[in-house]
Amino acid sequence: MKITRVESIPFSIPYRKPLHFASGEVHAAEHVLVRVHTDDGVVGVAEAPPRPYTYGETQRGIVAVIDDVFADQLQGLTLLEREQIGDRLARTIGNPTAKSAIDMAVWDALGKTLDLPVTDLLGGYTDRMRVSHMLGFDDPATMVAEAERMREQYGITTFKVKVGRRPASLDVAVVRALREHFGETVDLYIDGNRGWTAAESARAMAQMADLGLLFAEELCPADDVLGRRWLVGQTNIPFIADESVPTPADVTREILAGSATAINIKTARTGFTQSRRVHHLAEGLGVEMVMGNQIDGQIGTACALAFGTAFRATSQNAGEMSNFLDMSDDLLVEPLQIRDGILQRSSRPGIGIDLDPDKLEHYRTDN
Amino acid sequence: MKITRVESIPFSIPYRKPLHFASGEVHAAEHVLVRVHTDDGVVGVAEAPPRPYTYGETQRGIVAVIDDVFADQLQGLTLLEREQIGDRLARTIGNPTAKSAIDMAVWDALGKTLDLPVTDLLGGYTDRMRVSHMLGFDDPATMVAEAERMREQYGITTFKVKVGRRPASLDVAVVRALREHFGETVDLYIDGNRGWTAAESARAMAQMADLGLLFAEELCPADDVLGRRWLVGQTNIPFIADESVPTPADVTREILAGSATAINIKTARTGFTQSRRVHHLAEGLGVEMVMGNQIDGQIGTACALAFGTAFRATSQNAGEMSNFLDMSDDLLVEPLQIRDGILQRSSRPGIGIDLDPDKLEHYRTDN
Repeated sequence: MKITRVESIPFSIPYRKPLHFASGEVHAAEHVLVRVHTDDGVVGVAEAPPRPYTYGETQRGIVAVIDDVFADQLQGLTLLEREQIGDRLARTIGNPTAKSAIDMAVWDALGKTLDLPVTDLLGGYTDRMRVSHMLGFDDPATMVAEAERMREQYGITTFKVKVGRRPASLDVAVVRALREHFGETVDLYIDGNRGWTAAESARAMAQMADLGLLFAEELCPADDVLGRRWLVGQTNIPFIADESVPTPADVTREILAGSATAINIKTARTGFTQSRRVHHLAEGLGVEMVMGNQIDGQIGTACALAFGTAFRATSQNAGEMSNFLDMSDDLLVEPLQIRDGILQRSSRPGIGIDLDPDKLEHYRTDN
Repeated sequence: MKITRVESIPFSIPYRKPLHFASGEVHAAEHVLVRVHTDDGVVGVAEAPPRPYTYGETQRGIVAVIDDVFADQLQGLTLLEREQIGDRLARTIGNPTAKSAIDMAVWDALGKTLDLPVTDLLGGYTDRMRVSHMLGFDDPATMVAEAERMREQYGITTFKVKVGRRPASLDVAVVRALREHFGETVDLYIDGNRGWTAAESARAMAQMADLGLLFAEELCPADDVLGRRWLVGQTNIPFIADESVPTPADVTREILAGSATAINIKTARTGFTQSRRVHHLAEGLGVEMVMGNQIDGQIGTACALAFGTAFRATSQNAGEMSNFLDMSDDLLVEPLQIRDGILQRSSRPGIGIDLDPDKLEHYRTDN
């Protein structure tokens, strides 16, 4: 179980169409594949999605910090010494997705070594999760059509609507159109990616008060400290912190400060080891959690699914696990399949995925 | 890995001499051995120590709730479905040591099935912990002699001094005698088991201000709500909550309320699964933790050691793991050995202990 090598392989897979957010725009999945090798010949894999607008990491930076710093630090450790691995990675500040991909690749290798799914090693709560789909900015009719397509094609009935445009009435109209079209047959929640001010958020929430939203996420920046608390204090649905809670300490700060009343867990930024810390912390603090998506590919989505199914609290809400559908291709031998709105986790060892060597050869950008 | 049977076996092993606490007196270790059997023929073991004065459980009550309620609920589950097991046990209120013994026996069976130590499954941080020894009520000279004996015989240099007598000067004199005898060569902390009022505690702390204490634990009851917060607010060393934080939610309440600034983790009451929740929560809240002892026998001590060595925060402070020395015998084939003040965890599968069938036959009280 000794770790002998840590590989970082940049790859690029085009999206079917560019993705738009309040915080920026993405044209291709330019991720980094991480492979952890052991002296038994086992290889654990995971992917790191660079999100400069969210975590400050770039694809080249992730490769660099893994090759130049982290790879050496893991030498001589075994797959069992995960708390030691975490300690060593923590010497370097930041770099959350690089660290998380290493952590998840270690868990994948451990599961393969033990012939057990990672979910079972983590907690083993269930084998499936409902999937929620994110609806990006567009006009109401187009977004309703997109939701309808997702329901017909994949059975998805939970939608996370991106908001944060100005005027807010653009977004309110979309949410209202969705509710009018679907009635009570779908669950809706909104994510502002910090696009509005606290006052804009409060006005928009008032206009959507009759629309039965599940959650509201990051409507305004957590750094607008008092405005955010004022907003959360008057919001009568759970207010999800996402970008503002990348670490357990941030969860503690934001929840205790009244800056959020629920959290988003992303394995892309906290891996499995730290995601479990975040989960146990949030559960102990008594707040809800949603499994989020860092615009993950299928590898990252399989990771979120493997973690989410391990615990009750992470599997009871639909997880944001449909972004991979926007990619024109991926690296897996067997693509993930959303059926009846559900993703079934693999019962195979580790994260339960196999890479297609031809596809990796085709999409890798380092040779 | 399917669970086929859960056994509860009451046993009684005399103490060398009766143990005295502010909350009561104990003459023999009347514990319950829990064995979890699987269809692979693997047997996981742990022990539940009934503490009616602390958790309300009795030896007969533990046997009854396991035989009549919990055993059936585990039928059909595998060792991998630990979060499902926890959910089912949680349907029954209370019974923390019965639930914890089952949880730890499941982990022991899982480790044995996978041929891996439980510590490595949990986190794998280190292989050893320093041991602290509890000094029970007596006169200063006798308690100094006991500490001296523990240092000479076992190399122990951290002592937890029981306090809470009236007048408090009885206890202050003991701590002062220990510090004068040992100088800075030992670490000292105190545990009141809620024996004093907040005001008595504050006066005693003032009288011990020059004695360089590490921690103060449960000096007055947490249910003396405002008095306790007043005391903790003026105490300049970490104030450990123990009896007042048996669950993660209690940790959140007491820490956030300012009723404690550190916590004691006892695997006897939170097993491994919930102890990890407590650890991750406390770490996320940013408070120190100490591995405590529920007057465990060697089985329970091996459990505390297996958990404590899994993480940095639980292994950096000395753990309270010497109480088993007060027992006249135990059930293990190879007794635990404290050397140079250290307990080394087993590198064998599961918790890493083997029961002596003759000893079990001799000490069990159900036939």
